[in-house]
Amino acid sequence: MKNRARQIGFSHERDLVLRLWNKGFAVIRAPASGSRAKRIAYPDIVAIRKGIVFAFEVKTTHKNKPIYVPKHQVEKIREFIRRAGGYGFIAVKIIGETGWRFISIDRLVEAGNNYKINRETLTNSLKIQDILSIAVKNKSIDDYININK
Amino acid sequence: MKNRARQIGFSHERDLVLRLWNKGFAVIRAPASGSRAKRIAYPDIVAIRKGIVFAFEVKTTHKNKPIYVPKHQVEKIREFIRRAGGYGFIAVKIIGETGWRFISIDRLVEAGNNYKINRETLTNSLKIQDILSIAVKNKSIDDYININK
Repeated sequence: MKNRARQIGFSHERDLVLRLWNKGFAVIRAPASGSRAKRIAYPDIVAIRKGIVFAFEVKTTHKNKPIYVPKHQVEKIREFIRRAGGYGFIAVKIIGETGWRFISIDRLVEAGNNYKINRETLTNSLKIQDILSIAVKNKSIDDYININK
Repeated sequence: MKNRARQIGFSHERDLVLRLWNKGFAVIRAPASGSRAKRIAYPDIVAIRKGIVFAFEVKTTHKNKPIYVPKHQVEKIREFIRRAGGYGFIAVKIIGETGWRFISIDRLVEAGNNYKINRETLTNSLKIQDILSIAVKNKSIDDYININK
């Protein structure tokens, strides 16, 4: 069952990798967490377009369920971005829907040892086309955050 | 034997990941090639510092042996860099020596279906400190290429 869940997780990650690639990004996916070097902060997926870097932690959820992201996973993204420059996002796959949603790590709300993404934040979150717009600098990320507030 | 060779390859890749991380780079290593999406051009390792991207193909060799890199592996790096911006290198681990050497993909010499790195090119190649210097823009990559010519 655990392996089955991991396989589904991988197929979702691969789906996101292909979508980002098809939008023109250079994309790299990290190996399974067990085979990563412990000291290194690895995002699940990194996408780059002409020096603009996006680091993603991938989460899968069912519709209308709140999403909890362990704080250490967000810190990992933050450390990566501190070094690489660019933007950190939680990439959310909602089971039964085709697209992906993206929540900036700066928009997460603390909840104990986790950060929480509530339903409203998810509704107002970015789509893959918005990520591309930020990359090509049609829009700054602040435009989205202000619109969505 | 094949698995053993693969394990040694992984431990070398991990060594380079840690060295780049300790120099302040954000670093991500690709999963084993079998589990990669076929359509995607994955370098073995990507290192980024404040938007400056380095893509590496990792090779292991014995001293004084020429190194052959299959053309499709170099094309993979070239496509990644075309999208991401930055620099593509062959990262060479010489068995029995401690450090790494880096050869720009623009300095490779064609040899049939491969590119060849001969002994002289390897002797004049970059060290990890040179990669850092390019990243922090103390030097441009052209300085090295001209010095080494």
